[in-house]
Amino acid sequence: MKLKAMYSFLNADLQLVEKELEAATQSDYSLLSSAALHLLQAGGKRIRPVFVLLSGKFGEYDIQRIKHVAVALELIHMASLVHDDVIDDAEMRRGRETIKAKWDNRFAMYTGDYIFARSLEWMTRLNNPLAHRILARTIVEVCRGEIEQIKDKYRFDQTLRCYLRRIKRKTALLIAVSCQLGAIAANAPKEVADRLYLFGYYVGMSFQITDDILDFIGTQEQLGKPAGSDLLQGNVTLPVLFAMENVHAKEKIVRVHPHTSADEMNEIITLIKQTGAIEQSYAMSDRYLQKAFAVLETLPKNKARSALYEVAKYIGKRKF
Amino acid sequence: MKLKAMYSFLNADLQLVEKELEAATQSDYSLLSSAALHLLQAGGKRIRPVFVLLSGKFGEYDIQRIKHVAVALELIHMASLVHDDVIDDAEMRRGRETIKAKWDNRFAMYTGDYIFARSLEWMTRLNNPLAHRILARTIVEVCRGEIEQIKDKYRFDQTLRCYLRRIKRKTALLIAVSCQLGAIAANAPKEVADRLYLFGYYVGMSFQITDDILDFIGTQEQLGKPAGSDLLQGNVTLPVLFAMENVHAKEKIVRVHPHTSADEMNEIITLIKQTGAIEQSYAMSDRYLQKAFAVLETLPKNKARSALYEVAKYIGKRKF
Repeated sequence: MKLKAMYSFLNADLQLVEKELEAATQSDYSLLSSAALHLLQAGGKRIRPVFVLLSGKFGEYDIQRIKHVAVALELIHMASLVHDDVIDDAEMRRGRETIKAKWDNRFAMYTGDYIFARSLEWMTRLNNPLAHRILARTIVEVCRGEIEQIKDKYRFDQTLRCYLRRIKRKTALLIAVSCQLGAIAANAPKEVADRLYLFGYYVGMSFQITDDILDFIGTQEQLGKPAGSDLLQGNVTLPVLFAMENVHAKEKIVRVHPHTSADEMNEIITLIKQTGAIEQSYAMSDRYLQKAFAVLETLPKNKARSALYEVAKYIGKRKF
Repeated sequence: MKLKAMYSFLNADLQLVEKELEAATQSDYSLLSSAALHLLQAGGKRIRPVFVLLSGKFGEYDIQRIKHVAVALELIHMASLVHDDVIDDAEMRRGRETIKAKWDNRFAMYTGDYIFARSLEWMTRLNNPLAHRILARTIVEVCRGEIEQIKDKYRFDQTLRCYLRRIKRKTALLIAVSCQLGAIAANAPKEVADRLYLFGYYVGMSFQITDDILDFIGTQEQLGKPAGSDLLQGNVTLPVLFAMENVHAKEKIVRVHPHTSADEMNEIITLIKQTGAIEQSYAMSDRYLQKAFAVLETLPKNKARSALYEVAKYIGKRKF
């Protein structure tokens, strides 16, 4: 099944969210608007808004309230991408030039700041101090995750725990909070919101692990960048950690630096695949997915629950 | 009178705010904590917390509530300084190395992000959605001001209006909102909060114009950087705009670029002083100050009002 078909009953509402996203990124300064629009048009799955809306279905769903939450979560995600591209010195994302490549690092920094701030501004349209507090704390954690990512670059001696904590802050938290805030915005019972948070957390962990796997097994065309880019940039991800349990592979991996040649990288990628690290990583991704499904079982049965199940399965097992 | 003597009755409360600021910038990641501490210890006048607390005295002043607002406003100011130093490529601030100089631009970007987010997190400790909304909107405007500042660099044909709008967003707004939110946190009547906002706006305009004057008339020792640094970096400030009404001065000024020599800069500074631009700028700063005083006259007479008067006079007319 295609992703969009899983929640076709949300189509009209997602279109409304898209329009709001455009409005939220507009400004009277045209360069900023065009940078934000460039980013919006680059697309993306809008996974966070989907989780917000589906979670809202467990309460008194009102699109006019919940749309603010959906927009806020997608904006945070966009802002963090802009700043990540500065850090990673990335020229391309989703097959398009990044803001820092098209303009420059400084402009990208303030564009990111602006989008972060807009996210919070949008959220405060919802008259709910608890929701504001959760969002602000989430941004703090996302920032910590980003800082940890710099600190941990090319640190090949890091533990599995270190990796898991990093992807929690970097990815899983935002998906968990999307689910939680969707429920809160719809005045769902606290217990339901808490379970949706947990569901989102497990899905997010599975999602990021799959992402980290795809960096090794995807083609340049699928990824929009060469395979192994994460490792070349010093990001020590789960397949790398598993592969380093093999002494021979470890010897090669720890020598990776920003200027390792494409040939050497291809050799290392082949080596990583041969260790079985990809399969081990998929197994861990799947364990998180199964935990997510188990949480889902405890929630009231409805159309949204079925859709959450399908979406989780899709993004945990996706091929690109 | 020394600045601190004007509000000595706040001493204990300001010490509490200082302790909270330390707590707010701590994290379990030591590099981030030390960067934030480096910034805190660089000092600064803590003008925004002072305005918050004094404005709170116009309502039901409760330091345990209002301290959150004071911390949030100072943190936003700190975060914007960190990002400004990245943009300006500044090596020194207040006589100390900047974060971007001591570590690097990337780290400085995320440190700024982190402090921005902490500011909002701290604010949400106050259970007041209106206050959250005002703060979020303020950050959006501050970011716009920062982006405008990049856009307007070395644009010597800009209007006075363009300059005034920029310093409003860059400086005056944050002081205005400090006053407004101090009043709101103390449940002061809306009309009082609105007047305090206006007072803060006028004071902020005067403050920034004075700052822009000092860049030309201060010594390197007073400024912590060479005189004329703003102009060298392309910031077209009020004294520059006034000086360019003189055709001879304008000819020299429009040729300033990032690598203009120190000797040439000194010549241009002398020229700017000779046009009378400094006196004209002081006159405009003073007009804003008088407007601030006029607003103050309409507020209830109390110890805080007297202190606001003294503080405003001090920062509008300060010599360094």
